[in-house]
Amino acid sequence: MKVAIVGASGAVGQELLRILAERNFPIDELLLFGSVRSAGTKYEFRGKEYEVKLLQHNDDFKGVDFAFTSAGAGTSKEFADTITKYGAIMIDNSSAFRMNEDVPLVVPECNAEDALNRPRGIIANPNCTTIMMVVVLKPLEQLSHIRRIHIASYQSASGAGAAAMAELQQQYKELLETGKVETIKKFPHQLAYNVIPQIDVFTDTDYTKEEMKMYHETRKIMHSDVQTSATCVRISSLRSHSESVWLETERPITAEEARKVLAAAPGVTLVDDPQNYVYPMPLESAGKDDIYVGRVRKDLANENGLTLWLTGDQIRKGAALNAVQIAEYLVDKK
Amino acid sequence: MKVAIVGASGAVGQELLRILAERNFPIDELLLFGSVRSAGTKYEFRGKEYEVKLLQHNDDFKGVDFAFTSAGAGTSKEFADTITKYGAIMIDNSSAFRMNEDVPLVVPECNAEDALNRPRGIIANPNCTTIMMVVVLKPLEQLSHIRRIHIASYQSASGAGAAAMAELQQQYKELLETGKVETIKKFPHQLAYNVIPQIDVFTDTDYTKEEMKMYHETRKIMHSDVQTSATCVRISSLRSHSESVWLETERPITAEEARKVLAAAPGVTLVDDPQNYVYPMPLESAGKDDIYVGRVRKDLANENGLTLWLTGDQIRKGAALNAVQIAEYLVDKK
Repeated sequence: MKVAIVGASGAVGQELLRILAERNFPIDELLLFGSVRSAGTKYEFRGKEYEVKLLQHNDDFKGVDFAFTSAGAGTSKEFADTITKYGAIMIDNSSAFRMNEDVPLVVPECNAEDALNRPRGIIANPNCTTIMMVVVLKPLEQLSHIRRIHIASYQSASGAGAAAMAELQQQYKELLETGKVETIKKFPHQLAYNVIPQIDVFTDTDYTKEEMKMYHETRKIMHSDVQTSATCVRISSLRSHSESVWLETERPITAEEARKVLAAAPGVTLVDDPQNYVYPMPLESAGKDDIYVGRVRKDLANENGLTLWLTGDQIRKGAALNAVQIAEYLVDKK
Repeated sequence: MKVAIVGASGAVGQELLRILAERNFPIDELLLFGSVRSAGTKYEFRGKEYEVKLLQHNDDFKGVDFAFTSAGAGTSKEFADTITKYGAIMIDNSSAFRMNEDVPLVVPECNAEDALNRPRGIIANPNCTTIMMVVVLKPLEQLSHIRRIHIASYQSASGAGAAAMAELQQQYKELLETGKVETIKKFPHQLAYNVIPQIDVFTDTDYTKEEMKMYHETRKIMHSDVQTSATCVRISSLRSHSESVWLETERPITAEEARKVLAAAPGVTLVDDPQNYVYPMPLESAGKDDIYVGRVRKDLANENGLTLWLTGDQIRKGAALNAVQIAEYLVDKK
């Protein structure tokens, strides 16, 4: 199998390399691509060194089976034809094609089979906060149709990239050394000891793009008319996002029913023993594959409602791992 | 006027001293009380020094007009009779009497007149997260009755006291110096770079006490049958809490209507220009009197729903300021 990674130097690109190695993905040949800035950088993969090549409009993707692209929506749009021209399956981590009708949007635990129908050779990887949530919602949807969702997110600095994570650490360092934050580049405001209720830019609905992704992507992945209202918030953790979720189902689901199906669901680990201080936390889910869910209980404001708390590593399951799982599914189906 | 502060050395006690001075509350005589640990400590107030006396079952409260108590529910219960015996009005910041039928629970912007009927001489100050929310909900309730509320909170370390705030700072220091957190005493887990979905202990509903306070106290303050489901979460900010709130009203309210009444509401500052990165943030509301509200928009999952984001200084309006405002109202009514 010939595999390409576009955006190999980024946070998701690096995680892709780790996950492909860990999961022993069948790779005979590996190609790394990047921008002018990262071209020439070398990375080790399974004991061998690979150099990042400059991404160009040429025949580099001839013979490639899977191309994992994670270099932003602009790059994905510009290079989609170049990448898929000779039959490579492009598994795209950007938002470029997610809502296109001719591009499936896939979370294997929810709608793996959608990956089989890809007229353009492109499969889109959903937004991290959406992936994390739908993995948990899918088994509940099978109990009873979910009609409405409300979500408040607690998103880590690394969601904005490795440099943003470094900036947060730098801010805490500056506070300790000088009592004042000097470095504010990656976020619109100081993040250390703060909370910023904005992720991505605002749309004309007064929701951010990140929040609207949760609305639209959830419907597409779950083949559902579910309505979603999200408030996406940046907090000063480094890695792993958390979400406080309320859902309304057609018939009432008890917390016990919910816990039972969640405990058995693929990709989900139930962590729900609050009396003993056991619940999902970003520090503990960082670097893990599963989405951790806990604090499952009835919604006190809705007879047909349930509420829960989840955390997950947004760079792993929220991005790189999900992309690799899509490829694994296709390898398996061949 | 003779004023007593019980729990003078605590975070709220210290804030009471600052607020009483700032607002020029009419004080002729000031008495400070505390535990064995803080008795003897001296604090300055309006240029004069006061020594903390040991709180005891004696006649120290004779002639006191207002006693602000903030030394925990146990102390409030134990000393209520001693404090109120000679007619002092006890404005209690603890949870001891909040749900008692013969004790009014007051947020002046919402139900000031309830403070006039106090058979036991006690007025309860609500929980911080509830105070902050009802100040914002009150003007919306006047537009249309609020039936349901969903809240996810983002609560600062100082909500657990001054020592907890110091512990969070210590954790960041340890991480910088040794790469590892050593000090975990005030919270059940490391808080630096983490999120803890637990505030106070769990009840048998699987909601925490903090979350159940939001349910019950909101109904009592607003004289309402509103149902509330909250998830209260500790995050690594120092001061000021934030809340992501969804509310369902009897008739749909537009975001414009809501913004208009919020802009005019007492105790509320509308901070809602997201396209220019302007929204409430804990770093900016710390030390301020008003509750800051923004990100006002329609609930995409509920035709009768509205969603908004608020932050406020939980030690000021969430505790000390609200208590002083209750006293001011009563002074005014005399």
